[in-house]
Amino acid sequence: MMPRTRLRLSIHHCRRYVQLPFLIQAKFIHEASSPSLELDLCNPTFMIWGSNTGVGKTLVSTGIAASVLSASKPSHCVYVKPVQTGFPLDSDSRFVYRKVSEILRRGKPRALFASDRVLNASNPAYREVRRAASVRLEDNGAEGLGVRDACYEEETIGGIDEEMFYRLTCLTFYGWKDAVSPHIAVEREGMPVDDSLLRGKLSSLLMEDGKGVVWRLVETAGGVASPGPSGSLQCDLYRPLRLPVILVGDGRLGGISATISAYETMKVRGYDIVAVILESHGLQNEDSLLSYLKNRFPVLVLPSVPDDPSNNLIDWFSESSKVFSSLQEVMLSYQRNRTQSLHDMRKRAGDIFWWPFTQHKFVPMESVTVIDSRCGESFAIHEVRHNKEMIFSQFDACASWWTQGPDAILQIELAQEMGYTAARYGHVMFPENVYEPSFRCAELLLGGVGKDWASRVYFSDNGSTAVEIALKMALRQFLLDHGLLDFENVNPVGVVKIRVLALSGSYHGDTLGAMEAQAPTSYTGFLQHPWYSGKGLFLKPPTIFISKEMWNLSLPDCFEYDNIKNDDLQFSSYGEFLSRARDSSAVARCYSAHISNQLLEFSTSSPCTYIGALIIEPVIHGSDGMHMIDPLFQRMLVSECRKRKIPVIFDEVFSGFWRLGRESAAELLGCLPDIACFGKLMTGGIIPLAATLVTETVFNAFRGDSKLIALLHGHSYSAHAMGCAAAAKSIQWFKDPSTNVNIEHGEGKLKEIWDMKVVHQLSSFPSVKRVVSLGTLCAIELHATGLDLGYASLQVSSLVQQLRREDNVYVRPLGNVIYLMCGPCTSQHFCSQQLNKVCKRISEFSKFDEEITIRSNIYK
Amino acid sequence: MMPRTRLRLSIHHCRRYVQLPFLIQAKFIHEASSPSLELDLCNPTFMIWGSNTGVGKTLVSTGIAASVLSASKPSHCVYVKPVQTGFPLDSDSRFVYRKVSEILRRGKPRALFASDRVLNASNPAYREVRRAASVRLEDNGAEGLGVRDACYEEETIGGIDEEMFYRLTCLTFYGWKDAVSPHIAVEREGMPVDDSLLRGKLSSLLMEDGKGVVWRLVETAGGVASPGPSGSLQCDLYRPLRLPVILVGDGRLGGISATISAYETMKVRGYDIVAVILESHGLQNEDSLLSYLKNRFPVLVLPSVPDDPSNNLIDWFSESSKVFSSLQEVMLSYQRNRTQSLHDMRKRAGDIFWWPFTQHKFVPMESVTVIDSRCGESFAIHEVRHNKEMIFSQFDACASWWTQGPDAILQIELAQEMGYTAARYGHVMFPENVYEPSFRCAELLLGGVGKDWASRVYFSDNGSTAVEIALKMALRQFLLDHGLLDFENVNPVGVVKIRVLALSGSYHGDTLGAMEAQAPTSYTGFLQHPWYSGKGLFLKPPTIFISKEMWNLSLPDCFEYDNIKNDDLQFSSYGEFLSRARDSSAVARCYSAHISNQLLEFSTSSPCTYIGALIIEPVIHGSDGMHMIDPLFQRMLVSECRKRKIPVIFDEVFSGFWRLGRESAAELLGCLPDIACFGKLMTGGIIPLAATLVTETVFNAFRGDSKLIALLHGHSYSAHAMGCAAAAKSIQWFKDPSTNVNIEHGEGKLKEIWDMKVVHQLSSFPSVKRVVSLGTLCAIELHATGLDLGYASLQVSSLVQQLRREDNVYVRPLGNVIYLMCGPCTSQHFCSQQLNKVCKRISEFSKFDEEITIRSNIYK
Repeated sequence: MMPRTRLRLSIHHCRRYVQLPFLIQAKFIHEASSPSLELDLCNPTFMIWGSNTGVGKTLVSTGIAASVLSASKPSHCVYVKPVQTGFPLDSDSRFVYRKVSEILRRGKPRALFASDRVLNASNPAYREVRRAASVRLEDNGAEGLGVRDACYEEETIGGIDEEMFYRLTCLTFYGWKDAVSPHIAVEREGMPVDDSLLRGKLSSLLMEDGKGVVWRLVETAGGVASPGPSGSLQCDLYRPLRLPVILVGDGRLGGISATISAYETMKVRGYDIVAVILESHGLQNEDSLLSYLKNRFPVLVLPSVPDDPSNNLIDWFSESSKVFSSLQEVMLSYQRNRTQSLHDMRKRAGDIFWWPFTQHKFVPMESVTVIDSRCGESFAIHEVRHNKEMIFSQFDACASWWTQGPDAILQIELAQEMGYTAARYGHVMFPENVYEPSFRCAELLLGGVGKDWASRVYFSDNGSTAVEIALKMALRQFLLDHGLLDFENVNPVGVVKIRVLALSGSYHGDTLGAMEAQAPTSYTGFLQHPWYSGKGLFLKPPTIFISKEMWNLSLPDCFEYDNIKNDDLQFSSYGEFLSRARDSSAVARCYSAHISNQLLEFSTSSPCTYIGALIIEPVIHGSDGMHMIDPLFQRMLVSECRKRKIPVIFDEVFSGFWRLGRESAAELLGCLPDIACFGKLMTGGIIPLAATLVTETVFNAFRGDSKLIALLHGHSYSAHAMGCAAAAKSIQWFKDPSTNVNIEHGEGKLKEIWDMKVVHQLSSFPSVKRVVSLGTLCAIELHATGLDLGYASLQVSSLVQQLRREDNVYVRPLGNVIYLMCGPCTSQHFCSQQLNKVCKRISEFSKFDEEITIRSNIYK
Repeated sequence: MMPRTRLRLSIHHCRRYVQLPFLIQAKFIHEASSPSLELDLCNPTFMIWGSNTGVGKTLVSTGIAASVLSASKPSHCVYVKPVQTGFPLDSDSRFVYRKVSEILRRGKPRALFASDRVLNASNPAYREVRRAASVRLEDNGAEGLGVRDACYEEETIGGIDEEMFYRLTCLTFYGWKDAVSPHIAVEREGMPVDDSLLRGKLSSLLMEDGKGVVWRLVETAGGVASPGPSGSLQCDLYRPLRLPVILVGDGRLGGISATISAYETMKVRGYDIVAVILESHGLQNEDSLLSYLKNRFPVLVLPSVPDDPSNNLIDWFSESSKVFSSLQEVMLSYQRNRTQSLHDMRKRAGDIFWWPFTQHKFVPMESVTVIDSRCGESFAIHEVRHNKEMIFSQFDACASWWTQGPDAILQIELAQEMGYTAARYGHVMFPENVYEPSFRCAELLLGGVGKDWASRVYFSDNGSTAVEIALKMALRQFLLDHGLLDFENVNPVGVVKIRVLALSGSYHGDTLGAMEAQAPTSYTGFLQHPWYSGKGLFLKPPTIFISKEMWNLSLPDCFEYDNIKNDDLQFSSYGEFLSRARDSSAVARCYSAHISNQLLEFSTSSPCTYIGALIIEPVIHGSDGMHMIDPLFQRMLVSECRKRKIPVIFDEVFSGFWRLGRESAAELLGCLPDIACFGKLMTGGIIPLAATLVTETVFNAFRGDSKLIALLHGHSYSAHAMGCAAAAKSIQWFKDPSTNVNIEHGEGKLKEIWDMKVVHQLSSFPSVKRVVSLGTLCAIELHATGLDLGYASLQVSSLVQQLRREDNVYVRPLGNVIYLMCGPCTSQHFCSQQLNKVCKRISEFSKFDEEITIRSNIYK
């Protein structure tokens, strides 16, 4: 055997440490950076969780670390214990550090550089540390000793060539003295640590660059659902990182249950479990676990740990080394498979999917986004950046295409609700039945978005079907009201053609019936559907937007606005153009007259043709580019239709459930519909469900003595339990000030989420044509100054790339419109961060653009 | 204090016991009846679960029982320990029995009749029992002593008037000697108990009638996920009963985690947790639990249990009595609220819902079905029967309106998958993105139902949208193939009208585009949609059915069948008419000619009008009354369309995923489509998701240099993660012989689920017009012999009532068609039970019908 040197480090060695080309340095002194995730997939990173206390997490960490460092080539292993109580008497990182060194000293000779370091200690813990340190170090006369220094231990065994060193870095982030749950320790000893700080520290560590491959093991405290320092459960606290899990099972009596329950707690938070490993207590718990978990992942069994506390366990580790080396293999292969599968998905996605609204020819393989998971408002995406396999978090600025609502907490609440509801109901058919989720959901809808007008809920699957249903309802109501049905024969009285009144640019879905209620565009042309004919009278609406820091009203040319003053076309605030005082303005009269004229003209020019329904998207035309329609105009439309007994449909699929800052956008219009359609955010945005709400009058148009009079429309999953449960939960969550920070008590509306100062600033950039900011939405239309549209679209696309790649904001433009969309609960702080990124990019872009304009003017 | 008598029962007292007007008697001697649930809601019934071993479940049971029996009026409490290991040394029922007696003796005087009984013991346990009993009873010289007798203890305290007795009945169902997990005990000592037997015993107990209100407490063994005797986890084993849960929490270090995990294990199985109760260990675990579980249910804290094993705990129980009495109040109020809420739902459902396909005028409040939950193939419904509030299980013969697939095991698997997927992804937008569930689902679709032909998957939300998409695709393909598009202008070349070829009676959904592809019926008339015009050439199809024990082919009159022999119109088996040999038959030639003629006639009579797509539902027309279409005819249709380059769409929304015994019904036709639509069963039937599969040729018709050429159709929830995850899981589960008992290795088809003998028998009843049995479907059309249709429909409705109320089969007729539908995994045994019930009812009905016929003939 080679000779070994052992060196117990004294204080001055720490100086050398700082210069070492080594992991874990300066960054820890910084403030915790944003908790956003950047995980390097080349470095195997795992979190060690216990299915109970006292099941041997630290033994497992030690075993894995020793196995990693027993490799034939120099290897690195970082062990982190973010939260330690009972410190300094107990220190898992010290145990790992010492035990691994001890184990390796017995094995094949190697040069090992090992260290253990504790970064923060509570005052009582620190006093203990000082006491111990002063005993140990008093002859050094060290003063001003921090906890990091005093707890620092380092050992070098073997050679001196640093390149050839094996490295073990053990770290404890926070230590408290009492051996109690961390949140109790905080209560008793102080040193509160908030979740994002703890996550931030861990993220920073994971972002560290090391030499070669570095194994990183993070060991939690207690059981999977034990509270962390803030009181949040650890399984929730660490969820944004979603590190792969090594679950240490429980081999004792009752351990099957404890292990399975712990496994399920992790699963229902979206973690991936890589392996279960447990100590044998002679009860064959592993058999039950294997049988229950079959094919999911391996269950490894460790020999019994000797009871004798004086036993140094070295023999046990030696006996267990094969198990740990198998475990290490399992972990490595998980890591490899995960990376491979992310790659394969990117490669193959474009070959097997047919994405909606997508010209596949324009989507090269590289531009496919691989989404590993989401947590609250952010995706975790896979990308190769700077030649490294990475998982990044990216703010989902499309709020997953206008549906997504939950923050991280609600997401887990909903996940539990989905598990429960599927287990309780699976799916149960709806007609003539009732079950709790459908009932609760309907009651909440009628008491919320349907308050004061709706009395019935018709469930379907998506916005498009909700609109198809609404149209059938409205047209029947109209036919009845206007005596156009021969009720006996259920046939029209003579020749009757029915059309709808709708606005150009509004969108109601892509099924044929919904398409027919939309004005002709390239989305509805013969190429898209040879059956589309556009069964409507489509009016061009006046729009409102912020430009040069003012709200501006823009009237289409077809309006007669001779009597309208310029003052009527500008507003300094949002409240101003929402004001009911405008109802008696010249603008209102102009609107009314325009609508009446259009209706008259239509009826004159189209014999036997009736306008059977009004259908509008309140306030915002989403798909058409986030145009804000003057609420006054929509109110006038409703009022003109009421006069003519034309049923009114509000398509709130986009606008409903706080998208525009109110539970229902009808509140912004200040008038009520006969029928309204909801979808998207209704379920919190996690699962498809739609509802068409109606007045009792409309419902009664379908009551009668024959089934043929009933609405013979339905979908198998009508009012499916999971959708209704998600909706019931989300509807309550969003409107409750105790769960949604953006709801002001008694106000019934969202706080201003997007910083209006920044919004106004944006609206004054030369490259910005208009801004619309309302509720959870902030949309910015860019225009090309000086150059053509093709150039503008190139500009947009480069902006999109920058935002995605460099700012981690996942935007997907609508033509020249860049928009940010958050959930109803997203904090103003978070939104401001995102908006500032966009503002910064657009300002740079505007500068560049100005230059271009100047230059192009020069060369004109 | 009143004097009390105490009486330790000797053997001969057992005789008296049998005659007592008392709970728990003869039924236990029967074979376990069917595990179907009948729970009387008047009797508070709860299951006591432990979040760990050694947390004091039995103390809690004892406390509740004592609290119940401390009531001021005589009360009954039944305590059941279904599974006991360590017996007879340990016997929780004996503990409860003795301790409660002891406690009550200290309290207010009352007449108590208490007993403890153990029904079955393993041989080793029995030997122990005998040994103990022989010592105790040797002077009686008792021979032939069974375990029930030997373990029987009874005590009477106080008065003699039986009516005034308080009663405590303690029961252990099964006892094993070793203090290990029950499944290990079974391995060692024998006495295997299968899950349904255990559930059956428990159900029988719960169905017992008692005098007045009887509290029933069932205490499980070990932790929530500890295995039962068969090795199934107890939380799974008892799930079909879904008794409300009292969870005994863990007050020790690590107990927060253990309690939360146990709670989550129960939640994700659909249990309702009524309260958590835990012993204080001075760690304030209850604070964390309360904060985590806030508003969900109460957390109660018991004083610390004295460590001293010699302590008789009487003081502790006395100290705890207030907690137990609060718990009892919580339990009672849960029970009351549950019942109230079931009532309210029934009352209000008809006022707030608008059910699909339902004439509300025909649905009185009493006929609303209140579904409390489902487990595998059965609903648990609430009903008042014989003046009692009951929860019954009812076979969902509508397989929840044609979607439902999972058995009880898959349901829980899917529930976990839903929880995991929601926690991992929530919802993430699809266009240009990829994430694992969507990817896996698409691969499984292309490798399964799309095998050998499809190369792309287009996701949407339901069958109707999948069809709308399919039509858009097919029509584009046709326009391109036939040079009908001016590609530059994306306009038709001249006047081009496009129609589809479809079959009368086929159904493709209720959105307008899907409706247009259906032949006119009262479901598509002006009353239902003023915009419907029926854009198709609709052919009447030949149908096949079983009547008088033969398969018969019925050709519509419009066919020219002069050359067809009677032999060609009858088949003795299913295989016979599926045979490809028929392709060269006279029938095939007749079909071909008919189709060609129809197409020719159409093109002649409709200038500028093209048939742009064929759309069919393979083999079964579901909505139209479960008509089986001759597969040969559909094959000929496809073949004629291929000749004319007309794209072929298979609408497999109903038929796909084993509904008809094959993964894809295309296998029955023996030909492939260009486009196929899937939905319903695809996700296992628990959550909406649809897919349109296409060939690469069709996909390429949308590739081009402009976004406008792309398919501009989409839904926000396209390929939503939960739907895709459910689909991926179910697709694999259904086709894997190791998870689906109905799949024969290497066969790729389901076993014959419905007993053909019974089916043939049914087809010979005079009141049965025809039967169609295929895959998971068995449909029976009744006809009224002798009387009119109104009478027939009355008959059907009384049959439906009998099946629902008396046979617990939830059927919902399609006109005169009664059908049973199961999942792909439902056992033949279970299906036979259900089919036999139907057969029995219809046979009675046929007899009655015959009588009516005879009588009506007499009076003619």
